Amino acid sequence: MATEGGDRRPKYQRIADTIREAIQAGEYGPGDRLPGENELMAAHGVARMTARQALGVLQNEGIAESRKGAGVFVRAFRPLRRRGIERLSREQWGAGRSIWSADTEDRTLVVDQVGVTEEPAPERIAHVLGIGSGNAVCVRRRRFVLDGKPVLLAASYLPAALVAGSAITELDTGPGGLYARLGELGLAPVRFREEVRSRMPSRDETSRLGLSPGTPVMLICRTAFTIDGRSVEVNEMTLDSAAYVLEYGFDA
Amino acid sequence: MATEGGDRRPKYQRIADTIREAIQAGEYGPGDRLPGENELMAAHGVARMTARQALGVLQNEGIAESRKGAGVFVRAFRPLRRRGIERLSREQWGAGRSIWSADTEDRTLVVDQVGVTEEPAPERIAHVLGIGSGNAVCVRRRRFVLDGKPVLLAASYLPAALVAGSAITELDTGPGGLYARLGELGLAPVRFREEVRSRMPSRDETSRLGLSPGTPVMLICRTAFTIDGRSVEVNEMTLDSAAYVLEYGFDA
Repeated sequence: MATEGGDRRPKYQRIADTIREAIQAGEYGPGDRLPGENELMAAHGVARMTARQALGVLQNEGIAESRKGAGVFVRAFRPLRRRGIERLSREQWGAGRSIWSADTEDRTLVVDQVGVTEEPAPERIAHVLGIGSGNAVCVRRRRFVLDGKPVLLAASYLPAALVAGSAITELDTGPGGLYARLGELGLAPVRFREEVRSRMPSRDETSRLGLSPGTPVMLICRTAFTIDGRSVEVNEMTLDSAAYVLEYGFDA
Repeated sequence: MATEGGDRRPKYQRIADTIREAIQAGEYGPGDRLPGENELMAAHGVARMTARQALGVLQNEGIAESRKGAGVFVRAFRPLRRRGIERLSREQWGAGRSIWSADTEDRTLVVDQVGVTEEPAPERIAHVLGIGSGNAVCVRRRRFVLDGKPVLLAASYLPAALVAGSAITELDTGPGGLYARLGELGLAPVRFREEVRSRMPSRDETSRLGLSPGTPVMLICRTAFTIDGRSVEVNEMTLDSAAYVLEYGFDA
């Protein structure tokens, strides 16, 4: 690989490093167009493939993203702020509002896909719900879209025997949503646990969330517990990491 | 690109998909060795480069990882469970224990790099601490290692004027750590906010955390507030996402 002086980095890596430093120094701001292949070829005296590789490095790091026909741009991070604790407070769903409305501040998060099915519980879900693996669960799957871009996949699992005949098994759960209905069944959640991790997306997640290269997903597994410590719902969420900041506040 | 029947996927992608399905079906478990290039060449009648690309897809997805000279293996996910709320409870640091000890259950998290400096506050930090950009902050930087592998970088920022002369500016903050010392200064934190996001690592983070390809980082920005709502510390943490699950519990 071509090097300059004592510098062992391949040329495309050095060009990528130069552009990255310029971004970090604020020479290119969020949404700005980066120099294209032709400009990089002229400025650094390299072949097109080298220029393309340099821009590819920045895209794989998630710092830049390509827009078809328009070039490569500095990625903006203008996330939704998801408040884990306030959004789930009983005041909200008790008053008939959806727990999701607090997600968005003044931006509009919309469900564009929804489905309700009854399925045998996957082992990991059965384990958390304390039911036998393969026992029936009611599964509510939704996709949420912000400004036309899918940002969140959610799959909520509840023991089918608990919720049979309630609006939980229907597409529209009614005012106050799922938790209000659980309350009417004497199963009001009083405590929640959220477990958060991150990994690279599967091909299916990439396609369903429309993810750019270099974009991990965050996974939230939320479990809802009743007053007697029974887990009544597990919600597996898959979030576009470029669209979300999660916020948790708590006392010392 | 070579295809088979109506299948439009390139060959390496189809091979990767086959292996991924076998992993998901449990044919290969965490830590198991996957078929090598020679085996894939023979089994699928493809060139070495195609076999290598197929294994590369799985590595970039974080599903598999290569060990030098030994082959490519299914990645295990055996994370630390970091409990955001319990670990910061006053009972812990009030009793002279470090807030970090609860991170690890029975595994040992060790600080292998530590540094304390005084620096001008970066703009984002000054903003949160409510001080002028460029005002001096005491910065405590640590790297944490688990089973010999770095898993966490932490940089804690405090207004230098607040902590001058206290053990907070020394390498060893003494029993109960930073928060016990803040308490002695009349600045005991009573409330914390954690903001969590995820992105691909920078080259520097990849090297300091020894990250495999296809491994995002999780970022936690934790702010500590006193009883009168003053922010006295901002801790920026960078976590190996393959090593951590974050847990938050809260009441409805």
